[in-house]
Formats: sequence, structure tokens, C-alpha cells
Amino acid sequence: MIITLKKNAPQEEVDRLYENFEEKGLQVNIIQGANFNVFGLVGDTSQISDRDILANEWVENVQRVSAPYKLANRMFHPEDTIVNVGGVKVGGNEKIVIIGGPCSIESKEQIVRIGKEVKDCGADMIRGGAYKPRTSPYSFQGLGYQGLLDMADAREETGLPIVSEVMSADKVDEFVENVDLVQIGARNMQNFDLLKAVGHINKPVLLKRGMSATIEDWIMSAEYIMANGNPNVIMCERGIRTFEKYTRNTMDLAVIPIIKEKTHLPIIIDPSHATGDWKLIEPMSLAAIAAGADGLIIEVHDQPECAWSDGAQSLKPEKFKQLIEKARVVAKAVGRDL
Amino acid sequence: MIITLKKNAPQEEVDRLYENFEEKGLQVNIIQGANFNVFGLVGDTSQISDRDILANEWVENVQRVSAPYKLANRMFHPEDTIVNVGGVKVGGNEKIVIIGGPCSIESKEQIVRIGKEVKDCGADMIRGGAYKPRTSPYSFQGLGYQGLLDMADAREETGLPIVSEVMSADKVDEFVENVDLVQIGARNMQNFDLLKAVGHINKPVLLKRGMSATIEDWIMSAEYIMANGNPNVIMCERGIRTFEKYTRNTMDLAVIPIIKEKTHLPIIIDPSHATGDWKLIEPMSLAAIAAGADGLIIEVHDQPECAWSDGAQSLKPEKFKQLIEKARVVAKAVGRDL
Amino acid sequence: MIITLKKNAPQEEVDRLYENFEEKGLQVNIIQGANFNVFGLVGDTSQISDRDILANEWVENVQRVSAPYKLANRMFHPEDTIVNVGGVKVGGNEKIVIIGGPCSIESKEQIVRIGKEVKDCGADMIRGGAYKPRTSPYSFQGLGYQGLLDMADAREETGLPIVSEVMSADKVDEFVENVDLVQIGARNMQNFDLLKAVGHINKPVLLKRGMSATIEDWIMSAEYIMANGNPNVIMCERGIRTFEKYTRNTMDLAVIPIIKEKTHLPIIIDPSHATGDWKLIEPMSLAAIAAGADGLIIEVHDQPECAWSDGAQSLKPEKFKQLIEKARVVAKAVGRDL
Amino acid sequence: MIITLKKNAPQEEVDRLYENFEEKGLQVNIIQGANFNVFGLVGDTSQISDRDILANEWVENVQRVSAPYKLANRMFHPEDTIVNVGGVKVGGNEKIVIIGGPCSIESKEQIVRIGKEVKDCGADMIRGGAYKPRTSPYSFQGLGYQGLLDMADAREETGLPIVSEVMSADKVDEFVENVDLVQIGARNMQNFDLLKAVGHINKPVLLKRGMSATIEDWIMSAEYIMANGNPNVIMCERGIRTFEKYTRNTMDLAVIPIIKEKTHLPIIIDPSHATGDWKLIEPMSLAAIAAGADGLIIEVHDQPECAWSDGAQSLKPEKFKQLIEKARVVAKAVGRDL
Repeated sequence: MIITLKKNAPQEEVDRLYENFEEKGLQVNIIQGANFNVFGLVGDTSQISDRDILANEWVENVQRVSAPYKLANRMFHPEDTIVNVGGVKVGGNEKIVIIGGPCSIESKEQIVRIGKEVKDCGADMIRGGAYKPRTSPYSFQGLGYQGLLDMADAREETGLPIVSEVMSADKVDEFVENVDLVQIGARNMQNFDLLKAVGHINKPVLLKRGMSATIEDWIMSAEYIMANGNPNVIMCERGIRTFEKYTRNTMDLAVIPIIKEKTHLPIIIDPSHATGDWKLIEPMSLAAIAAGADGLIIEVHDQPECAWSDGAQSLKPEKFKQLIEKARVVAKAVGRDL
Repeated sequence: MIITLKKNAPQEEVDRLYENFEEKGLQVNIIQGANFNVFGLVGDTSQISDRDILANEWVENVQRVSAPYKLANRMFHPEDTIVNVGGVKVGGNEKIVIIGGPCSIESKEQIVRIGKEVKDCGADMIRGGAYKPRTSPYSFQGLGYQGLLDMADAREETGLPIVSEVMSADKVDEFVENVDLVQIGARNMQNFDLLKAVGHINKPVLLKRGMSATIEDWIMSAEYIMANGNPNVIMCERGIRTFEKYTRNTMDLAVIPIIKEKTHLPIIIDPSHATGDWKLIEPMSLAAIAAGADGLIIEVHDQPECAWSDGAQSLKPEKFKQLIEKARVVAKAVGRDL
Repeated sequence: MIITLKKNAPQEEVDRLYENFEEKGLQVNIIQGANFNVFGLVGDTSQISDRDILANEWVENVQRVSAPYKLANRMFHPEDTIVNVGGVKVGGNEKIVIIGGPCSIESKEQIVRIGKEVKDCGADMIRGGAYKPRTSPYSFQGLGYQGLLDMADAREETGLPIVSEVMSADKVDEFVENVDLVQIGARNMQNFDLLKAVGHINKPVLLKRGMSATIEDWIMSAEYIMANGNPNVIMCERGIRTFEKYTRNTMDLAVIPIIKEKTHLPIIIDPSHATGDWKLIEPMSLAAIAAGADGLIIEVHDQPECAWSDGAQSLKPEKFKQLIEKARVVAKAVGRDL
Repeated sequence: MIITLKKNAPQEEVDRLYENFEEKGLQVNIIQGANFNVFGLVGDTSQISDRDILANEWVENVQRVSAPYKLANRMFHPEDTIVNVGGVKVGGNEKIVIIGGPCSIESKEQIVRIGKEVKDCGADMIRGGAYKPRTSPYSFQGLGYQGLLDMADAREETGLPIVSEVMSADKVDEFVENVDLVQIGARNMQNFDLLKAVGHINKPVLLKRGMSATIEDWIMSAEYIMANGNPNVIMCERGIRTFEKYTRNTMDLAVIPIIKEKTHLPIIIDPSHATGDWKLIEPMSLAAIAAGADGLIIEVHDQPECAWSDGAQSLKPEKFKQLIEKARVVAKAVGRDL
């Protein structure tokens, strides 16, 4: 950690800071510059908050040299983490996984029917929302627990693992019992109580990136889950909020090589939320595969215009099938199976 | 609601849509344009999701004419809502309220001591965090329930109402029992389960704007609380995330006149989080008052450099006192008391 | 164009507006709603500015139905524009073009040497900056006119067309004489005098997207060039500015299918500026090809650590060659040649 | 400057870098950390580009300790710069200046008429656009040179200095001859050829912040003008581009204390462009004054609904007069005259 001090800082203040860091077991190197003095701290600085040091009025600037995450850090865990989701392996050089299904579970009949369709198209897992985060209190809020039970029937009928989003800590048990991959949605990426709760379970977690989360914030949220005991985290990019209006969000594909460099976790892409427009899903899916994604999660509905939510970004099964076929060719082109 | 249809949409599709809207009790007006046809829907469209209509591949565009919120909407509730927080009135033409206190409650002694200091400076309420949303799992997470009890002692000793942030629905009861104003933090602005939970209580709610929430998203979150039964919502701007690096966030003061135009709710400003830099708090506080804010919430610590969190954006009591004195003069200049 | 009027607008004001639009040859349809009245204008509204109508205090909202661009609009020009750059065709189903070369031309020897190297790697054109837009006045500003002459030698020696950025209208003649493709940089995307100037030349233009330009702004800048007489515009995405800090910019690949849907112009991608990090260039290039890009423009330098500018985002020739080979395989996977 | 090196960097590479910096006259301090080594450079690093050092693959990170600007830097020029615009002083503790006038000059009659009105309201200078940067090539582009001549008549008739925007280097002479304050618009903030051109004149420059310019970028653009010989730069905030849709831009008032801390230049605020909505101009103007702004530049039109551009954000004279009266009271409250 590098701390820049104002040149006019009183000597006693400089000494106090120096001793304070030494007491914490850190080695302090001082560089005298023309306009500033610099402290270089060597040792484990992960327990020190840069913002707390900034509180000192003689401190101009604080910069971290090492990343603030440890368990997720590739530097201390060089080999890829491969997450097993009900038998389907995600990450490393495993087969690229395709997850498909409706935004919302609307009925047992619907989720079983669409579940079978996405399986026929070639999907590896089924997605579906039982508890729905909706911007408006007047929109359909999901079938709740019954939805999870309906979805478990879809697993029964298809043999595919299922993914669904948990929205509060008190429902985590329902998910552990019924689903194979527990999703944390973008709006809850920094709901730290929920992160701690899924840190204590023995089911893998799909962690979506928050709409305005930096990559570092996002990795820190994975670190929360891991630090609470659950190493099985899959990262999922779903677009960030920018000034652009033609798309719902801006899909940030550079995260794929970055997450792979900084961490050892798998990363999949959600082109449905990232674009908000079914017409853009296929090209963005192929781009994600080409950039090295470990999987895709895509909204599929057989009657998008009648869907209870997010019809605008849902693919019809025939288009989903076609997408998988094209994605398979691109995957092969970059040396991956799908 | 205005729906733009592609000119080449098949007639049967247009008819189907037309009937579909009529069945929902809406009156449909059709405008034939050169390149597009337009449906103008008249009636209550709040239950219709624009994104669901967009799912139809012949629909080019959907635009709302009326705002999607009702209970928070100034149009249907012209007079100002004045929220009573333990005897302190917020909003309308009431006295501007000043809330001060530490980021984190560190001990009973600390919160009582700082509570007395902020009272002496002229504050109307005390803030303090018992449950802390921290980006890193390795940072101090707050004293929890004990912190709330300690804070209740500060109220006892000062007579000032107290404000603290609740982070999960299962803790809401603790807050109802112990605090006067229940804060929803920026990271939980779209934690809809938590919004519903505080919608069911009879304590007022301080709703911070999410880091990337549009004003409309934010009002919709207030609508969630109100639709679940709690009309006492105070809006709080705390800065939005942008590309700028010199400040922690970008403080958006235009929200003050906008919230007052679109809704009837009070709005206060948090310059501590909005800037992240104690040096900027005073000028930004004066700006907020001049723009019409109903209050300020400011982090105050008597030893910022030793604070357990957010020292960099905490004011020392003497600077807080000075700020209040200057703010009082500006308030008078814009016709408000403080 | 859809104009929403406040319900309490005085009748004479409504009548005045109505007549005003009719005088402009527009047909006005009125829809009476519960809270608002709506004017639907039919006819050519491209000469009307939505912001001017908003100046009327009774107008709540103005929404365009048709896009504000005509010459660039796919709706009125369904077939792809294919731009011929010194014999190399860009767009449609033509071969994907690869443009490589240094950020700055440092000497005749350097640009000729690197030009030959990029040709050997398989590039179709050479890029190089003679006039350099640098954030600091103390950074190297480019060799200027001499640089263009040096670059013309590189064309002579390699037979490849050359691309360089023009920064002001008074230099346009130099470029017409010496380069094959005239680049407008991101910082000048809304330098309208420069857009008009390159609208009058008979050389094709490479139009980079501004750092905070919406896709519509960007297309409008293309429209400027086209409206002044030059139909040969190639769009180039180079990343937009967001809150993310791990990359220099956020590369927005959704623009590829969107530009192809909304316009008939070719689009190429600049992964060097979009990411700012040589390690990310290869995966982002493959992603761009998979998403349908018509080309790539990449910074290549044989000694990046000694480059006079932008070494951090420059590829060494051997890595550039490897990238082209991988890109060729991905291109084939999506049905394109490269 | 602090350079972080990968621990596994080969010794010869480390030595090479070390010598390279020493040759440039810099003193190099080395700190050996657990995971990284750090070079601390002492000396004048302003001629070194951080991005060029990053090109070295063994370099993990480069961080500046000192700001990259010198002439604009408050550290080397502690006293306030006060800019004299045709007799009106801007900055320091001078009277706050108010600049008003139409977006576009529409005729001699119009600019003289509105000029007199804004003078009667209490304005200190007149603004008006002769050359207009318009997003659409089909919008009114300004009267050009004739507009400047018309505006000079308004100065003649009112005695007030005049401000207008220059859009290209070849027109700078027209402005030197005819206007008192030469404006660089937001879209040209990094049009470096134009910055150099106005660096050579002896008229003061009003430098608007670019829509996505960081504060540092913006100061660097001022540095361009100053480094080319013109010390008379006034900074002008006009809002930045964010995801928010209710306002045209997001007004960033924290720049006021920051520009005053980092530089010695005056700063004024443009609430018209920052908000895009005449209803927001008054509260945002008062906020700017309270935060310490040295002036305001506001669009005023006597018939906004007929204005040839930007009517939506223009104030009528009576509202402008009322704003100035309120602003005067707020100015007094913060110890300034107006």
C-alpha cells in the first residue's frame, strides 16, 4: 500500500502514522519527494481500509498495490475452479454450458413444457424465476415457493439441473432444498446479508454483476460468499448501466478475460438482460463464446408476447436452438466444446 | 401509452393487439403514419408493462405518457407530505432538519458522546450504523443489535430521534422497537423484500437513492413502500456512480426540484457519501439548502482518523457546527428556517 | 412525432400549437386522455427539433417515432453500403478487413518497417498517427505533415492503403492527397466543422464513436458527413466511458448488430482503445468478429515499451499475427472470410 | 510516480527500467514487497506518460503522485487568477458575474433587444451563439460571421462585454476582433488544435467541460491553452452525461470547490445546459452560488417557444430577473457580492 503525504505534514503526525503502521506489523519504507513524501507499506494490508487512512488530513492519496481479495485471487490459487452444478461442470476447459428457460415460472405446466423444449434445443440447465425482482410493485411478483416446486418437477421430467434467483436470506433454505444453482441477482449483488447466507450453504451460487458494480466490487462480493465458507461461485455478467439508450444495459465482455486473469472462478454471460432485446441475443452470445465465456444464460419463452415478464428479451425455442448450433461452431473455433 | 407498430405488421396481428387492449378496458386510438402506425391507449395503463408489449416483434417502440407511480405522484396528491420522525417534522415548509453522527456505532460511550456533541452543534437527529454494508468481508461489519441498544441510550441522553440502516427483512422488528427513522441504504434500494417489509411498519423510512438508480427507479422504490401501507417515506440523495474519479460519487442536486415536482415526499441530501471527502461537505451542504433540500444527513466523528469506517468523509464537530451556522444563513436566504 | 400536452393547457394555446404544426404541412391527430392530451404528428418531422417544442410550458413530453437521420437510415436504403478504400472493400459480405500499425508515426524508417511487418502478418491496411490528440500538452504531438509523407512511403513499399487521423479542417487537403481513409477521432466526433469538411471530400471517412456518444449521436455525425456529400462512411466503435476502472473504456459490442439494423454502413472495431490493455485485445477482437464486425483496427508496435505513445495497448507483430490467424477461424465459423 | 512491478520480473528487465529512469534524471527508490516490487520515482515526471510505462509487460500498475498539470496547478501558483473580460473581473473575491442571452443569435434586432433586456435584469455580460454546434445537420447552424457583427452591435448598445463560441481554429481571428470572451464548447474541449489556437490569442477563454471529461482531463485542456501562452482561462461546468433521463445532463457542483483547490482559475456554472429544463435553472443557480461559483451563464429568450434552438432550457427575462434577485441574496449569505 502506497500512502502519499503532504509535504507540510507536521513531523509528529508523520511519526504517529509511522508507528501506527509498525504496530500493525507492517514494514514502512519512506520516499522523500519534492512535493510529497511517500510511505510504502509492506506486509498484509488487507485489513486496512484505504478510506480510513484518507481521513487523516495530511494524507493526499492512498493506493493499493495488492488486490483486496484473497480467496478469489488467482495469484494465490492459480488453477481454475470448476463448479459442479448437479453433475454439470462449469469452468476450466469443461464444455461450455447453456442455460435456458423463461424469465418467470408461470405454472407447473409452463415450466415443464419450456424445460423440455430447451432440453431438446440442447440446453444443459433450466432457468426460471419463482421470486421476481420487479421495478413496479404492481407487476407480477412471481409464484414464490410454489414456483420452486413446479420447477423441481421440470428437473424431474428433464433430468436437467435448475437455476433460480433467491431474493432474501430467509428463503435460502427453500432454494437449498429445491434448486441446483442459487442465483444472486444484480440488484442484490451488495445485499451483504444475503451473500453471507449463501456463503453458508453447500449449493453453488451464480453471482450476477450489479448494474453499477466495478469488477473489483463484484469480485469482493464473491469473496464475501467464499469467506463465509462456500467456494463454489460462478460469476455472471448481465450488462452495466450507461448513458446509451438503444440497449437496456451495456454488455461488458472485457470482463471475461479479466475475471479469468484476476480470479480462478468460472464466468458466464447473460445476453438477455445485457441487451434487453431478443434481436441482439444471438450476436452477443456468439461474441461471448469467442471471448472465452464458460457459459450462457438465456431467456427462452414459447410465447414471448404473452410472457408474464420480460417478453421483449426472450427467444423463441426455434431461435434458441439455432443460436446453440451457431454457438457450437464458434466454440469449436476457439478450442472449446459446447 | 403510445405504441409504435411497424408499417408492415400483418393486419391480423394489428387486430389481435387492438382487441387485446380493448379487453383490458383501454380505449385504443390509431394514427396512420407514413412509416409507422401508432396506437394511443387511453385508460389505466399502470398494470401494463412496456417491456411485455415490446416482446411483439411488430412493435417498434412503447412510450408511457403517464408516470408508472401513483401513490407517490404529486398529480394525485398535490399537497406536501410532512413526515413526523419522533416529533421532528420533515418536509413542506417545516424547519430544515440536520442529522449528524458517526458512520458506525463503535461503543455505547462513543455514540452517546458524539450524540451529545452533534446536539450541541445544533443537530435535530442522530445517525449511526449498527449493521454496516461493507464492500469487503474483512472490514468491520458493525456492532449489530447491541449497537441499536447503545444508540437508544444516545436518544435517552439527548432527547433526539435516531436514524439507522436496516439491511435485512428479518431485522426490521429490532428497528421498529429501537429507532425513529429506518434507513434503507443505497445498495438495498431495490431489495424488494426489504422494501415490502418496511412497507408494513409504522415507523418512517429514509430511502437512499441507489448508486445507479434513475429518479424513476427511485420513486418506484418509494411506491413499493407506500403500496405496502407505509406513506411516511423521506427520499435521500447520496450521489450516483459516474466516470469521475476525484469524488467518490457524483452528487445530483437537480433531484431536489424534480422530486418536489413529481412527488409530494420530502427530500434530504447526504453530502458525506455523495462526495466521499470531508473538504467538500460544507460547500455541497450549502448548495443543497439553496436548491431547496428539506434536510441534510452528515457523518460526524470526533476522531475521524481513528473512525472504524468512512473517516475520510466525516466532519469533526467544530466543522459540523460551523457548517450548520453557515447553512442557517443560506436557509434564511431562500426563505426557510433551520 | 408524439407530443404530450398538460391537461390544463389553455384551449387557445392548444389551438395555436395545432395551427402551427398544420402550417408546417403536418397532419395532427389528437387523442384525449384522462390526464394528458396527445398530438400525433404525421408527415416529415425531421426539420422539427423536439427540444424546441419542449420550450412550450404546456408541453409535458415530446417523443419521436421516426429516427432523425435519413441518409444513413437503413429504412430508406435497404442494401449494404460497401466502402472502397484504395481497392479494399469494406462492409456487406466482403472479406473482413484488418488494419494494423503504430499509434504514432515516429519516423519514415519506423512506419515503413512496421508497415511491412503488419502486411506480413496478414493486414489489409496500415494505420499510423501523424497528428496526435494527446491529453497533455507536454506529450509528443505527432510528426505532422512529414508523418503523412512518411506514411505514404509505407504505402508505396507495401501496396497497402493507409489510414490516419485528421484533427482540423484546414489540414483536410493534406489527407485527401496522402491517405486512403481519413479518420475522425473520438474527441472530434462532434467537431461539426470538421465533419462538414470531410463531407466535401472524395475519400472515405472512418468515423470513431465519441467517448460519451449515444448510438444516435454517432449516426447523426455520419449523417453530417453524408448530408455534405460524402456517402463513404465507415463507423468505428472504440469504447465508451463508464465507471469501470480495470479497462480504459468499456467496449460496446452491441453496436455491431444495431448499426447494421439502423443503418446501411459498415462497422469496424478498435479493441486497442476500447480496452487500453494489450492482453485484452485478442479476446475482444474474436468477440467482435463473432458479433459480425466488418473489420478490426489494431495498434501494433515492434517495441511497445519504447513506443512514443500508447505502448500499453499495442500488440507485438507476432501476437498480431496469431490474432489474425485465430480471427480467421472465428470469421469462418460465422460465415465470413478474413 | 509509483511503479508496481511483478515479482517475477527478470532481473535484467528490472535493471533496464532502473537505468532508463536514472538516465531521465529521476531518482529511483525500490521497495521490495511480498508479491510486488515498487519503484518510487522522485523528480520531474511530467514528461513521462504512465501509459507508456504500462506497455512493459512486467509492470502491473503505474500511479502518479503529483498532478500532470503545472501552469494551472494551485500548488505552484497559490493566489487566485482574476480574469478581466472587457472590464468585468471574474474570480477571486470579485463580484459574482451573471451572463445571459439567447442560445442563438437570430438577427441583429433580436440580439440587441434581448441584450438590453438581460442588462435591465442585471446581467454583466451577454451571451449568444453565431456558430452553433447542432447534433443534426438539418438544424439551424447559426448566422456565422454576420451573427458576430450583430452581437457587436448589442455590445455597442448596452456597454456589456459579449461571449460567443468558436468552433474552429480558422475562425479564431473573427472572435478576437469581435468578442470579449471566447467560448470553447463542451464538444470541442479536446479539440486540441482549437485549444492551441486560443492559446495564442490575447482574449480570455471560457472553457466548458466536456460531457464525459474527468476533472483532470478538463484541467489538462486548460493547461493546453495556458502552455500555449494564454493564462486567462475561465472554467465552466455544464453537466456530464450519465444514465439519468429526467435531466439532459447531470450537473456536477462538486467541481466548484475542487477546481478552486486544484487550480487558481475562476469557475462559473451553466445551469441551462446542465439541466436542459428551464424549471430547474433557478434552484440549480442558487445551489451553484452557495457552493462558491464565480458566475453563472444562463440562456435567456423572450419567446422561448419560438427560439431557433434550445427553447426548452431558456428563461424568459422576467424569470431571469427574479433569479438574479434571489441569487443576490444567496451570494450575500455566503459572503459574496452579485
